[in-house]
Amino acid sequence: MSKKILKIIPIGGFGEVGKNMLAYEYGEEILVVDAGLMFPDSDMLGIDYIIPDFNYLVKNQKKVRGIVITHGHEDHTGAIPHLIEQVNAPIYATPLTRGLIEVKLAKNGLAKKARLHTVHAGESVGIGCFKVEFFHVSHSIPDSVGLGIDTPAGLIVHSGDYKFDHTPVDNWPSDYAKLAEFSQRGVLALLADSTNVERPGWAPSERVIDGAMAQVFDQAPGRIIVASFASHISRIQQVANAAANHKRKIAFIGTSMVENVKIARQLDYLDLDESMVVPADNALHLPDKEMVLMVTGSQGEPTSIMGRLAAGTNRAFDIKEGDTVVLSATPIPGNEESVYHVINRLYQRGANVIYGETTPVHVSGHASQEEMKLLIHLTQPKFFIPMHGELRMLKLHSQLAHSLGIPEENIAVVENGRVIELENHGRLENARMRLGERLPGGYVFVDGSSVGDVNQKVISERETLGRDGVMMVNLSVDKTNRRPYGQIEISSRGFLPDQSLNEYLPALRKRIDDAVRRPEGNLQQNVEETIKNFVYKELERRPVIFVNIHKQ
Amino acid sequence: MSKKILKIIPIGGFGEVGKNMLAYEYGEEILVVDAGLMFPDSDMLGIDYIIPDFNYLVKNQKKVRGIVITHGHEDHTGAIPHLIEQVNAPIYATPLTRGLIEVKLAKNGLAKKARLHTVHAGESVGIGCFKVEFFHVSHSIPDSVGLGIDTPAGLIVHSGDYKFDHTPVDNWPSDYAKLAEFSQRGVLALLADSTNVERPGWAPSERVIDGAMAQVFDQAPGRIIVASFASHISRIQQVANAAANHKRKIAFIGTSMVENVKIARQLDYLDLDESMVVPADNALHLPDKEMVLMVTGSQGEPTSIMGRLAAGTNRAFDIKEGDTVVLSATPIPGNEESVYHVINRLYQRGANVIYGETTPVHVSGHASQEEMKLLIHLTQPKFFIPMHGELRMLKLHSQLAHSLGIPEENIAVVENGRVIELENHGRLENARMRLGERLPGGYVFVDGSSVGDVNQKVISERETLGRDGVMMVNLSVDKTNRRPYGQIEISSRGFLPDQSLNEYLPALRKRIDDAVRRPEGNLQQNVEETIKNFVYKELERRPVIFVNIHKQ
Repeated sequence: MSKKILKIIPIGGFGEVGKNMLAYEYGEEILVVDAGLMFPDSDMLGIDYIIPDFNYLVKNQKKVRGIVITHGHEDHTGAIPHLIEQVNAPIYATPLTRGLIEVKLAKNGLAKKARLHTVHAGESVGIGCFKVEFFHVSHSIPDSVGLGIDTPAGLIVHSGDYKFDHTPVDNWPSDYAKLAEFSQRGVLALLADSTNVERPGWAPSERVIDGAMAQVFDQAPGRIIVASFASHISRIQQVANAAANHKRKIAFIGTSMVENVKIARQLDYLDLDESMVVPADNALHLPDKEMVLMVTGSQGEPTSIMGRLAAGTNRAFDIKEGDTVVLSATPIPGNEESVYHVINRLYQRGANVIYGETTPVHVSGHASQEEMKLLIHLTQPKFFIPMHGELRMLKLHSQLAHSLGIPEENIAVVENGRVIELENHGRLENARMRLGERLPGGYVFVDGSSVGDVNQKVISERETLGRDGVMMVNLSVDKTNRRPYGQIEISSRGFLPDQSLNEYLPALRKRIDDAVRRPEGNLQQNVEETIKNFVYKELERRPVIFVNIHKQ
Repeated sequence: MSKKILKIIPIGGFGEVGKNMLAYEYGEEILVVDAGLMFPDSDMLGIDYIIPDFNYLVKNQKKVRGIVITHGHEDHTGAIPHLIEQVNAPIYATPLTRGLIEVKLAKNGLAKKARLHTVHAGESVGIGCFKVEFFHVSHSIPDSVGLGIDTPAGLIVHSGDYKFDHTPVDNWPSDYAKLAEFSQRGVLALLADSTNVERPGWAPSERVIDGAMAQVFDQAPGRIIVASFASHISRIQQVANAAANHKRKIAFIGTSMVENVKIARQLDYLDLDESMVVPADNALHLPDKEMVLMVTGSQGEPTSIMGRLAAGTNRAFDIKEGDTVVLSATPIPGNEESVYHVINRLYQRGANVIYGETTPVHVSGHASQEEMKLLIHLTQPKFFIPMHGELRMLKLHSQLAHSLGIPEENIAVVENGRVIELENHGRLENARMRLGERLPGGYVFVDGSSVGDVNQKVISERETLGRDGVMMVNLSVDKTNRRPYGQIEISSRGFLPDQSLNEYLPALRKRIDDAVRRPEGNLQQNVEETIKNFVYKELERRPVIFVNIHKQ
């Protein structure tokens, strides 16, 4: 075996380590796993989404042999259009994942440019010096895979997003046998999903939803409206099954919901009887007790169907007394306020609302602690690298692995951008792990059509503007004698209502007038300081202040 | 008995119903319960806090006989300085609550103005036509009370914030006997805390913290730093007890923590041996294993001690390898992101972090479902009015009460501002409840020193500014021939970095120049529209645009 080094590189500076993009590099060859987007924190004002800073891949694009996508969620696929514009390596994905990627590429006019390859769980593909074995995992979207990556330095197991559901809706559990086989061959390192490491026990099976849905359908006096993630194909199947059992027809509303259902049905990942699926318009004319609407907006997004129903601004129909609304998802951290706001407004409009806090209408697609332990015991890795989590989760996951007997020095907790180097001197026992360089760069803000222009300075300015608003002052000054002439115009946005501002204007104009006449100092600075001090003293606020002095 | 009507009025438009302020009105007399503040939602940009719109009380101030405060938390006391400036009725509170109110009033220069009366749990006070009986309840601050309010229309039970802790830290459980006695006398209506109605079972006793703290203290290899709410006196006691058991000294850091400890010790609500409390400066010179620091910032507030420790900007000391940090509080909804951010940064700096998701170092001070059922069974009210919750919680609480046999028509779920009218025709069996008018008004934003000036329009402007920033354009136009002259000055904040903006400026100046020369239309409007369209077309963004045209 070679003494060369395998580098593991979680790409991007923000968010969960290695979740959105991770690269394996050996010699002159790079394998990329996933290319997803991140949703902004609530203090990243105005940002639509964030993509990893993959400048390292752009600089080394000749080395990139392929891009493997583990499953079809946005946080693993959303950056693909950005990536292939600069690094157009072949993409490998399972059929459903590929179908969802194609929809995304078509929207961006990149359908022809991308080089897509279909793989199936159970297959192996040689990608450069990497032999990638795709193995099935249960997750909240069908056709998800984990990866066994045979590298010249040894075998890597990359879990992807996974859980060990013994009774998944598609009857296709995670591939225990393959994981055990990996351990027979000797696993150099396990990279494992840390998302739910704070949860003790074992994640409930998707199957528990069936009972909860049956109860909700039994008791619903009128229409049933269910919101879930548009990608949650097995949840859609479960709602459709409940509808069929209760002699209700189902309609899908919302662009992403409609598109995903279409793809999933085409590829046979969704089993819906043709007779029970109706267009939304038709559904709205059915008797209330014979219909189910499945919509987008489980995160309370204001522009989604559910967001509009809560606000009373949906065009096609409104919430009415007797409706039963089911939110079949939990709020993503940071979305709690908007989800609870939506629930309150739905109640206000007369609906009964069923949500995860009160009824088990949602379960997580990620492993809990006992499943994480099982993964480690099945694969028996020499080195353990927790990924897919914020630092606190990786720390907890490392403590969990250590409690199973993995020595602390064999566990690497890193943040995005930090290279982990694995060296294998012939035998697994002699393999070494060490931290390598820290790559420059971090993440890239996408705002409107601009990718990467908006930086931290702009975000801070937005914070100031959002907190205290802006004031504009225009005045004319006679440059011969430094006397103001004409009216001093003062306006504001996001500061005070005009009516309240007007009370302060006479005093403020007087101060500005004085400042202009002051012989010493810089005129512009004098005026700006005067306004700033006046506003802070009177109102304890610090708006952005623009002063435009016209001299003539 | 009179046939007059008792009005129950939850004051203020935002947030949890009746939590911050609620009024009982009978004939010409009003009793106010609590006067608290609300923390803003994350989309209420720049707002420091919110107070109830108590204009109704101002208009009817001659009727206001007294203000009763149930306990010393900000959301029940924070609006007192605002209220008594306009409605200076006598205030009734238990000793600790009064002590905390006095600190607040002194800060606002209102110590002399306020008329404070000390009451004790178990006592009764006549306030106008209302006879108020204060009964002890367990909550996350000592000396909390609920109220039995004897009105001419009948007996009201007002729970306040409560839980049924059988083993509270101060060994003073909620007053079961008094509640049962109320039911003997016949309860017209129960108003009950709904905060934790989503939680099944029974809230764990504060006592479980002792075990968790002991474990943390046993294992901590160096300094221990505990963050909790400054008002959580019993938690402070528990940490001090753990410190004493482990031969560590304790120091308190952070203004509110220091002030509250001082008051609580003066009034004997905190039992600390003089020898174990040291000033912060001294503590920092003790060996690491002999100290505990108790600090503010359990909600991740950037300016708190814990926020500054996470950011590395604390002056007196820094986090170091081997520190154990305990966050003994759960994030208030909306604070999750900042709390988790703080935890990640503390890990990054080398601390081990103990928080509620991993170890029971915090329990809630509010009743869970089984306790709520017990309160209803103990008091056996004719009418049930869930309060202290958002609409969804009140709905769930009403379903819970209905499941115990209270008829739906005897339960009133209202939002703030809606008057509930109770009429008692001589006997409880004949009592009636109906919904009354909806009072105008809602809530009042406090921003810097301005109270109530900032309105929804200003907030929307802040949203726009925060999302897309602002652009300023200054140009001079020759009014004789409508030709621009001189340079068109363009600057921005929160929009694009100057470097990126500069790329667009030549094209934008050209468009503006064209727009000025256009003979038709309004000059100002032409220029503004031109800029708006250019920016949206090129960048898909909508900043606030200011155009200042100087004509000469």
